[in-house]
Amino acid sequence: MVIQAEQFQKVEGGITAPRGFRAAGVHCGIKAAKPDLALLVSDTLATAAGMFTTNAVRAAPVIVCQEKIQLGAAQAIVVNSGNANACTGAQGLADAREMAALAAAALGIAEEFVLVASTGIIGAPLPMDSIRRGMPAAVRTLGRDGAASAQAILTTDAFAKTAAVQVDIDGTAVTIGGMAKGAGMIHPQMATTLCFLTTDAAVSPGLLRTALRAAVDRSFNCISVDGDTSTNDTVLLLANGAAGQPVLADDGADFARFTTALTDVAASLAQMVVRDGEGASKLVTVRVQGARSRSDAKAAAAAVMTSPLVKTAVYGAEPNWGRVLAAVGRSGAAVREDRIAVWIGGHQVVAGGTAAGDPGPAAATMRAAEYELVIDLGLGDGTFTGWMSDLNEAYVKINAGYMT
Amino acid sequence: MVIQAEQFQKVEGGITAPRGFRAAGVHCGIKAAKPDLALLVSDTLATAAGMFTTNAVRAAPVIVCQEKIQLGAAQAIVVNSGNANACTGAQGLADAREMAALAAAALGIAEEFVLVASTGIIGAPLPMDSIRRGMPAAVRTLGRDGAASAQAILTTDAFAKTAAVQVDIDGTAVTIGGMAKGAGMIHPQMATTLCFLTTDAAVSPGLLRTALRAAVDRSFNCISVDGDTSTNDTVLLLANGAAGQPVLADDGADFARFTTALTDVAASLAQMVVRDGEGASKLVTVRVQGARSRSDAKAAAAAVMTSPLVKTAVYGAEPNWGRVLAAVGRSGAAVREDRIAVWIGGHQVVAGGTAAGDPGPAAATMRAAEYELVIDLGLGDGTFTGWMSDLNEAYVKINAGYMT
Repeated sequence: MVIQAEQFQKVEGGITAPRGFRAAGVHCGIKAAKPDLALLVSDTLATAAGMFTTNAVRAAPVIVCQEKIQLGAAQAIVVNSGNANACTGAQGLADAREMAALAAAALGIAEEFVLVASTGIIGAPLPMDSIRRGMPAAVRTLGRDGAASAQAILTTDAFAKTAAVQVDIDGTAVTIGGMAKGAGMIHPQMATTLCFLTTDAAVSPGLLRTALRAAVDRSFNCISVDGDTSTNDTVLLLANGAAGQPVLADDGADFARFTTALTDVAASLAQMVVRDGEGASKLVTVRVQGARSRSDAKAAAAAVMTSPLVKTAVYGAEPNWGRVLAAVGRSGAAVREDRIAVWIGGHQVVAGGTAAGDPGPAAATMRAAEYELVIDLGLGDGTFTGWMSDLNEAYVKINAGYMT
Repeated sequence: MVIQAEQFQKVEGGITAPRGFRAAGVHCGIKAAKPDLALLVSDTLATAAGMFTTNAVRAAPVIVCQEKIQLGAAQAIVVNSGNANACTGAQGLADAREMAALAAAALGIAEEFVLVASTGIIGAPLPMDSIRRGMPAAVRTLGRDGAASAQAILTTDAFAKTAAVQVDIDGTAVTIGGMAKGAGMIHPQMATTLCFLTTDAAVSPGLLRTALRAAVDRSFNCISVDGDTSTNDTVLLLANGAAGQPVLADDGADFARFTTALTDVAASLAQMVVRDGEGASKLVTVRVQGARSRSDAKAAAAAVMTSPLVKTAVYGAEPNWGRVLAAVGRSGAAVREDRIAVWIGGHQVVAGGTAAGDPGPAAATMRAAEYELVIDLGLGDGTFTGWMSDLNEAYVKINAGYMT
């Protein structure tokens, strides 16, 4: 099933697909053996935009990035996995600043232009000795292959998540690339998970923020694995202008095209995050339509996507549409029960708020790894599309500590 | 650990412990073999109050009860399990009314005074033939033993839930009894689950509503199994005055005492519902204190109690307080990270928003079946106490359909 229209040319390389970016991923000793320190550098100072967790408990690197991103410019991002540097107090803030300073010194650039992110366990001090030790190797191995950096930002992820597309802007081929990490604490509430996006387009700082917000609202803000919003959620976007096209400085057709391509990369990464959700065996596209407003549609979708009863029914491939209606009913969205219709994989199971058709084909559809759940509220034009995973024994095992 | 001060004399008998009530529970054929039809009758017309689901998708019996409860008086309640009569349209409403009418006719009382409730699968028509067939047996077996009725309202529950206390009101021994069903779709959002309460106290209709709201706000509105609010949630309270004490008609000390005793019964039943939550192996009392307001405290507790990551950590007996802070941080409650303190089973694990003390004793505590999690936000006087279960493989198995 096509989840997103593929209107852009996919290219290889992730965050280093755009011109003028180099990356590295090394093992510095935070984790036992796996890569745990990633570095991303632009050859020149880039326009920068960021979105961050809405959680009131914010990790130290989030606080540091929120300060630095005010400049609207950055040249490098340093990221560690294995330790979230969250709930670590004043020491944590000092450590996050030092981590950026270490990268700046090793790269010979100004500390103000180095952004920082962390992911991993909460509440333990960041092992700065490891980061000090690892930084020279990270700088030494910087190159045009983004694969190692995409590995070094992972935690419980099963696979690395990268995407890149090419788009023609004003006669110039512009490339947009990205990488993400996911797995747990994932919920549609502003800039979920860690995601780093790069482009060789030239974009003014204000428009870059606008484009990032639009892309995140249609990608990372549309997914849910477990409804838990992380303390570390960060999405950063660097635009270095290396493609040589005229700077995008007004809100016209070229900017719309750029934003759509950026959304395409972000949505690809967001869907990978759901597919690789802790324990996930299903990727269900949840489309709510006919809502009184987009925010109503989003509320209804969020209730469905986070309901443990819906998520276990998805796992069990049971067309238990009563759970879907119960979730929609408690969502806060305007609902008239007798207007609700539901389709699973194209097979209608609810009309006028009650059973319709044969549940057999819907049940058969649900045995697939990916399918679509459509809920029509019959009240207006509001729509929202999101992506959810299932809830199963593997999620419980991972998070009960058996595997951590 | 004492979860609620036991200030009232516990008595046996559940809903038939108060004078002037009889009950029955029979098998009528909705389920394969287990009891599935319960009847509760007062010897005389009783004052009645009710609270119902806040879900916009409401089952037919909820709609019928919400109409009838306006009278403020009732004499009988008929309940079936095995079928929720929810999402059943106009036929469902007609069936719910007929179910009440059948009981009224068999009892020789007015249909207006018979309330009705259903629980079980959503979306299937209520098998009225079974209910017609079972009603005479239910009436025939009415008696002073409430045990059979408490069995007949269960669905996936592992055990029947009854409670009763005696309280001295104005020199007269007044009894309050109750029964409940629980298991799934349980969340603190108004009158969760099915619960039937009886008392031989005489209480004016307005005060009875006030007492019921107060009791439910400190019991059923404080529990969470899976965050899903049912379409059928109903709490009904009948007060028949058979104890012979003067009618409680003003908001004085006697009324306060009655309300506290009623709350005690409701809280006992609510805790049983959590203990018997689908798959539940833990009962954790979550106390949030130091919040800016009670509603902030409730929001923080609700986020903790419904977080899949906290619930799996409870299952795994891991003192993963980072997940608790992350849940509090996204709850919407006013939070200053550096003011937060956390105790698990009396052992402090967080002070000033960061790690404090040895997590060993806290981890040991978490291996018990019941313990307390205290979160102090350090901002004010707002408190809230709730009860949560864990999330484990058994919950997934039950709800993925293996056992239904």
